[in-house]
Amino acid sequence: MSAIKELREYFEEIMRLNYIQAALGWDQEVNMQNYKSLEGRSKQVSLIEKLVHKRLTSEKVGKLINEAEKLSNLNEIESAMLREITREYNLATKLPEELVVEIAETSILAAKIWREARAKSDFSIFQNILEKNIELQKEKARRLETHPDMYSTLIDLYEPGATYDWITNVFNPIKPKLIDFVKRLNASSDKPDDSILKKNYDADTQFELSREILKKLDFDFDHGRQDKSTHPVTTSLASLDTRITTRTTEPFPDCITSTIHECGHALYDMGIKEELHDTILCEGTSMGIHESQSRMWENLVARSKEFWIYWYPIFQKYFPQNLKDYPMEKFYKAINIVQPSYIRVNADEVTYGLHIILRFELEKDLIDGKIQVKELPELWNSKFEDLLGIIPPNDAQGVLQDIHWSMGYIGYFPTYFLGNLYGAQIYNHALKNHPSLPEEYKKGEYSTLLGYLKENIHQYGKIYRAPELIRKITGEDLNPDYFIKYIQNKFPPIYGI
Amino acid sequence: MSAIKELREYFEEIMRLNYIQAALGWDQEVNMQNYKSLEGRSKQVSLIEKLVHKRLTSEKVGKLINEAEKLSNLNEIESAMLREITREYNLATKLPEELVVEIAETSILAAKIWREARAKSDFSIFQNILEKNIELQKEKARRLETHPDMYSTLIDLYEPGATYDWITNVFNPIKPKLIDFVKRLNASSDKPDDSILKKNYDADTQFELSREILKKLDFDFDHGRQDKSTHPVTTSLASLDTRITTRTTEPFPDCITSTIHECGHALYDMGIKEELHDTILCEGTSMGIHESQSRMWENLVARSKEFWIYWYPIFQKYFPQNLKDYPMEKFYKAINIVQPSYIRVNADEVTYGLHIILRFELEKDLIDGKIQVKELPELWNSKFEDLLGIIPPNDAQGVLQDIHWSMGYIGYFPTYFLGNLYGAQIYNHALKNHPSLPEEYKKGEYSTLLGYLKENIHQYGKIYRAPELIRKITGEDLNPDYFIKYIQNKFPPIYGI
Repeated sequence: MSAIKELREYFEEIMRLNYIQAALGWDQEVNMQNYKSLEGRSKQVSLIEKLVHKRLTSEKVGKLINEAEKLSNLNEIESAMLREITREYNLATKLPEELVVEIAETSILAAKIWREARAKSDFSIFQNILEKNIELQKEKARRLETHPDMYSTLIDLYEPGATYDWITNVFNPIKPKLIDFVKRLNASSDKPDDSILKKNYDADTQFELSREILKKLDFDFDHGRQDKSTHPVTTSLASLDTRITTRTTEPFPDCITSTIHECGHALYDMGIKEELHDTILCEGTSMGIHESQSRMWENLVARSKEFWIYWYPIFQKYFPQNLKDYPMEKFYKAINIVQPSYIRVNADEVTYGLHIILRFELEKDLIDGKIQVKELPELWNSKFEDLLGIIPPNDAQGVLQDIHWSMGYIGYFPTYFLGNLYGAQIYNHALKNHPSLPEEYKKGEYSTLLGYLKENIHQYGKIYRAPELIRKITGEDLNPDYFIKYIQNKFPPIYGI
Repeated sequence: MSAIKELREYFEEIMRLNYIQAALGWDQEVNMQNYKSLEGRSKQVSLIEKLVHKRLTSEKVGKLINEAEKLSNLNEIESAMLREITREYNLATKLPEELVVEIAETSILAAKIWREARAKSDFSIFQNILEKNIELQKEKARRLETHPDMYSTLIDLYEPGATYDWITNVFNPIKPKLIDFVKRLNASSDKPDDSILKKNYDADTQFELSREILKKLDFDFDHGRQDKSTHPVTTSLASLDTRITTRTTEPFPDCITSTIHECGHALYDMGIKEELHDTILCEGTSMGIHESQSRMWENLVARSKEFWIYWYPIFQKYFPQNLKDYPMEKFYKAINIVQPSYIRVNADEVTYGLHIILRFELEKDLIDGKIQVKELPELWNSKFEDLLGIIPPNDAQGVLQDIHWSMGYIGYFPTYFLGNLYGAQIYNHALKNHPSLPEEYKKGEYSTLLGYLKENIHQYGKIYRAPELIRKITGEDLNPDYFIKYIQNKFPPIYGI
């Protein structure tokens, strides 16, 4: 057997262990929220982590990589496979097993402590374990050293090839534009009224409705599930088992939009071509591209007027007391309100980027040691005021709102906003090629868009890296102007300016 | 570190892999019933199977066992651990990895095919894969060879120490007694009327009520769950994570009694002392003893009149349309009706054993090659008529009703009836020591019984084998007379004879 085929086979077992890990994670998220002890699960997770690490770092892999590099007849898939295997091998061999296990075990414990701290809105409960998490991530970055600065090394784990400088160059010109744009909209005397969203919407009915939408969006219930959890997530437990979760506790229609968001992630995973199943390429190519899919469905599709032309009458039937006599136009404006708010996951399309820039800047300084964990609540609030003009009333609605840092995910946040930017650029291209898309939404049809995304993005999994993929699709590098143009076209009419 | 301590540590990892396997199994049972493809999961399961097998058969284990056997200062727990580790090692080293993997993969596939065959009530769909399962089990028995006859070798996997001959000696004298007793009861002119159970009972309300009972029985919801599935099961996913499932589709009050049944299993797992957590001893000592716990709670407690003195008024509140004006005495008789029926899991306490004896005798002949898989439907029906006097109308209600053979569990069935027998003997002893038990049930209190079971059985996990345990508790060997006496005392008054 050739070295590349041997590698492929060897990595199938690693992928399966990763899927098992995902199954344990999904179960913990969906089924163990009330558990008093997570010790058993934590030890199972770290065992799998250890087994994966052991396999990744085996001498056999190094030897096979060397042999495979000498092969001259690799096809496109095999080359990409070799590239990703080499990356994983290099990352893993630089990390000692004890560090990998410590990171895994600490993150489970920290997530538990974070939940308690957030419930009590008391950062001091979380501070110690977060300090440990930050130290562990710095230790990881120092050992990996894929970039000269530690933060770029961490970013690269989620967005291969991206660096702090590159992202800064993308974000910096947008930052003042966003701040100004939010102010301009909010200076309007004809702002949308969102009181309709604050009425009572029965949780079970919301869930039922979200399910109906999932079916229309072609979420594959034969190889996937929708469940409830406090934090919506998408998890693939096998190449043909992708599950999303929905929450029904937040202001309407968050249940619906966040379900569509997770569906966007799921459709990506579900659309990867069979040839790549169970291989290292059977994943989204980066967190940014993944998020471009979720955000595209959530915002560019499901917050468009055409989407609601089909769905609003159905929503009226589900919630007649609230919506029967309420005009669609006003509802459409209400769900597109742009307004500084505290919680990232509830933020609108325009202010969302500012929430990310805040975290991006704090993370950089944390990793560089320019700021200390204990200063975070204060720094969070003052930066929040600079960017959004308001100050969170407490830590639960401020620095404690996200699970990411508790999980040890540092460098992950910027990919969310990159997702918005990639999404706008890709969607612009999709519209150029299929100008009829909005007309189809009016009929509740999404197959042209899904077909376009499958053909251009989903099927390829990890074959092309994000920068290559965006050039391949749109013919240019990531260009944030598409996003700026999109919001500048969409929102002024909503605000009557 | 001493050899026994090293073994204990080494086996902790194996136990964790077993727990992970249990988590995958639970997820499949609860969450994947509608999946079109189980291929991914099946490969994950067989990977864990392989990893466990590799660890079990490592030379290191053999070496450590040899060393540990020379140690003179082992305490009771260490001795039991060494005994169980030696057993597992001997079993595993006799089975080649390919056979282990093939059995695991075939069983997942067979369970899927069995579901289809049962749904269509068509044995021919199931025949081929069942033949393969039987051949694989015979192959397994030939290689293990712990007993001269293959069937005893398979039985021993579930009920250590038990043999076909020993069980035959237990079952044979009971068989005619049960057949006669059923006839005697059914000759009564004052038979209970169970029409009240055939009314409509809302499924969600049943589930809610079953949950209320679980709380009273001290099921630990801080370290466990109750979910829905088509087949009720109890699964421990960690030493502090025991989950049961409930179904609400069967005739009332099956949802309630089967939930109490599973709770009995769960309380056993939940009651094992902390010292044994994550060790090879952290399990019930045999399937028979496990079943003694579930059957004791389901039948001896929850089908007693005293149990209903507390619960019936509550049931009346949950189902006022059906029960408000219906007398408890009649309800008590209805749920204790003794009547030949087709489905084992719905069978009453008296006929249940006959369902088991039928399977026990068929399994023995299958394994000995005296009968062929293709003859099963016919043999099932004729044996059924001999034992129970009726003939199943189709295979779904006959030979296709149980999942066990599809899973490759041959030799498992007899442990169910052993459970009834062990249960009656233990309960007789509990009553002798705590004559107030029935009085406590009248007040909805079960702590004395649970305390007795924890003290005498649960805490010990696998320290004592079943025959040793029953002697330790009751001072005598398994004695089926207690069961016979129990039914002979209980049922004639219900039948007015």
